[in-house]
Amino acid sequence: MKQFFFLLLFSSIALGQASYDTVSAAIATEALEANHAIGMLKELALGIGHRISGSPQADQAVQWAKKTMEQLQFDNVRLEPVMVPRWVRGPIEEVTLTYAGTIKKLNACALGGSVGTPPEGITAEVVEVKSFQELASLGATAKGKIVFYNRAFERRFINTFQGYGRAVDQRWGGAIMAARSGGVAWMIRSMSSSLNDFPHTGSMGYADTLPKVPGIAISTNDAEFLGRVLKTEKNVRVTVKLACQTLSDVRSYNVLGELRGTEKPDEVIVIGGHLDSWDKGQGAHDDGSGCVQSIEALRILKSLGLKPKRTIRAVMFMNEENGLRGGRGYADTTRGKERHIAAVESDEGGFTPRGFGISDTAAYTKAKSWEPLFRAIGADRFFIGGGGADISPMGRKGVPMFGLNVDSHRYFDYHHTDADTFDKVNERELALGAACMAILSYLIAQEGL
Amino acid sequence: MKQFFFLLLFSSIALGQASYDTVSAAIATEALEANHAIGMLKELALGIGHRISGSPQADQAVQWAKKTMEQLQFDNVRLEPVMVPRWVRGPIEEVTLTYAGTIKKLNACALGGSVGTPPEGITAEVVEVKSFQELASLGATAKGKIVFYNRAFERRFINTFQGYGRAVDQRWGGAIMAARSGGVAWMIRSMSSSLNDFPHTGSMGYADTLPKVPGIAISTNDAEFLGRVLKTEKNVRVTVKLACQTLSDVRSYNVLGELRGTEKPDEVIVIGGHLDSWDKGQGAHDDGSGCVQSIEALRILKSLGLKPKRTIRAVMFMNEENGLRGGRGYADTTRGKERHIAAVESDEGGFTPRGFGISDTAAYTKAKSWEPLFRAIGADRFFIGGGGADISPMGRKGVPMFGLNVDSHRYFDYHHTDADTFDKVNERELALGAACMAILSYLIAQEGL
Repeated sequence: MKQFFFLLLFSSIALGQASYDTVSAAIATEALEANHAIGMLKELALGIGHRISGSPQADQAVQWAKKTMEQLQFDNVRLEPVMVPRWVRGPIEEVTLTYAGTIKKLNACALGGSVGTPPEGITAEVVEVKSFQELASLGATAKGKIVFYNRAFERRFINTFQGYGRAVDQRWGGAIMAARSGGVAWMIRSMSSSLNDFPHTGSMGYADTLPKVPGIAISTNDAEFLGRVLKTEKNVRVTVKLACQTLSDVRSYNVLGELRGTEKPDEVIVIGGHLDSWDKGQGAHDDGSGCVQSIEALRILKSLGLKPKRTIRAVMFMNEENGLRGGRGYADTTRGKERHIAAVESDEGGFTPRGFGISDTAAYTKAKSWEPLFRAIGADRFFIGGGGADISPMGRKGVPMFGLNVDSHRYFDYHHTDADTFDKVNERELALGAACMAILSYLIAQEGL
Repeated sequence: MKQFFFLLLFSSIALGQASYDTVSAAIATEALEANHAIGMLKELALGIGHRISGSPQADQAVQWAKKTMEQLQFDNVRLEPVMVPRWVRGPIEEVTLTYAGTIKKLNACALGGSVGTPPEGITAEVVEVKSFQELASLGATAKGKIVFYNRAFERRFINTFQGYGRAVDQRWGGAIMAARSGGVAWMIRSMSSSLNDFPHTGSMGYADTLPKVPGIAISTNDAEFLGRVLKTEKNVRVTVKLACQTLSDVRSYNVLGELRGTEKPDEVIVIGGHLDSWDKGQGAHDDGSGCVQSIEALRILKSLGLKPKRTIRAVMFMNEENGLRGGRGYADTTRGKERHIAAVESDEGGFTPRGFGISDTAAYTKAKSWEPLFRAIGADRFFIGGGGADISPMGRKGVPMFGLNVDSHRYFDYHHTDADTFDKVNERELALGAACMAILSYLIAQEGL
């Protein structure tokens, strides 16, 4: 009741003169009551759908972001061009398991950036390993075979990103290690904390000095199944048919909009997410959420009449998933007298916010004193370590990075799959993440770092 | 890595000798890795489905709970009989809106305990109010009409239970106030924090001295729609046809199982949830989750070889939703030398745990020192105030109550609707709630209160 009274009071006088406690509460209330973020996400994720770099949908997303920020009357809404890779999945994607007279289609998809196969596919015996070390120890055994990396994502970590971090080497390095062992193709157990039927795509790397062998992910349920089959059956073979290919780079854009600082406009706080997604689902949690939260953070500040002393700039980065060209391009652009004092990213999904991971000890020390302002929201856990892929090129140039840390339990059920859809995002959880971005960026704008 | 090493170490020696830090980490790891709670919930919620008191499904749930605890070899698994009300929705449930030549079926359902209507239904004009005060101020205007309580669940609270608490008087008291004003039926805007198409049922009360008028809930989307129609149209009428009725009380059961205390077996900590649900959806969050978490908490302690000094008893209460007969019956039962030292309930859904609400200042003061043991899980917010409906009769007898507090943003999207289904529960969030119940009950068992 008391809180309500304060809000009534401060809506009619300048909220900018109020205590940060009051500002923080007003921001959270505005986020929940206006409930604007979910409407934007509906347009982006449900309306446009998935939007891999270089696709027509990515172009639509760029135009959508620009128009949305223009309609909200942000300052200096603009596009910054960036060349991005153009990988296309193509019309054929078929993975078939054969053993002892059984033929079974697997829930599978090409990993992002994979080469395709000949039209007849690649058929070979499967060799299962749990690590690169195990693969190396097999010597010539893997030659001519399909290497199957089946080390499970560990459930035991409270933060699922730790489980991901300990499994994802299989995806990133799988192509190189398979080629080095003479493998003709490779597959991974999907990067998921649960057992489900979705194949999870994601980025991978090739070495220029080694053959480029096609890579796929199979669902965790199918990985369990295949693992069992390999224990009991001989001559277990898989046929992989992929029509994916990498085309020429195309022009795309980062999309920028800001609230110009009233006192130190050349000191800039970036808040952002990435506009591209994988070509699966609707890119709702990854990272439509981060994009609309960044726009919503500015909208909230503006609608409450809060005037930041320093410039807060929302940046929708392009090409996080398969190139990071947007993040690099943004960091490499010379901007006159401008100095970036912080970069904040939301790219862990639109789940309940818990706090911020902070890259820099000095920034952490300063920001730590603001924790109580995030306590009512339940997002008062600030810790050292964190940031975001898109802002990491800025981070390498010395800009302190803040990553919005959220409740991570559901993320890897959806990540890079057809299940990452609009209906998986809760409007309140999304809104409170936006509120955290607004509060943090406003505090940095007023107090510096 | 260090944590992993500890676990390896302590699995082979007595975990009971380890520090509480180690015990807490081992419990969380067991909950996530064994992932047992979600399998039990699948049997209860998906397998049996909704299970209102007195229904065949409620009987099945009783048998399921008993068998499950017997198979887990808990001590003293048993049923305690309790007579419960038997309300049935019946085959007809139809609410139709008519105005200016338009006929529209509303997403509606009877409120739990409502009387039915004559076969031809009740047709009357609608009068909308936002509060009982407003209704009273209308004087005779409401006579012969259908009273429509349309005060919205406020979005602004971080904890959605606060919004619920400020709206639910419309449901609890709506029948009495409508009858007092001469209304012939009444309807409420569903108790939901979001706009959706589900009608949310729930309990309501009649006064013996007033006519019992039928009560329904309509979806929040339909409430918004009807509110708009009432602003522009005249002679807006609704027809309500309900076949619901209250039958005679029937016998049902609380289901009990325990880990007998090694040193003070007569000092008992109850951990529980309620086995019954509304006759909607699958009672997955409300409160299948609390039931399986209570069983899982004991299973975890047992599987880790932890031997509580005091008795920890899992109780699946019957009839929380429309009578609380199970909770009352349990509290009223004389149990020889036994003394209850604490009661812990999980009945806010199987979402990410955040801490415990504690009814009693002395218990709070003691438990507060345990917060760090819940920090890794992110459930280290202990606060004064809380408990649970089923344990409230024990609370009134002086037993300190603990309510598992969880992330509440999604709860009222599902609560008491067809949307409260198994697929809405995340296995990790559910498991960590069970871990919190296990850690807390073990601490109380070892340290007292």
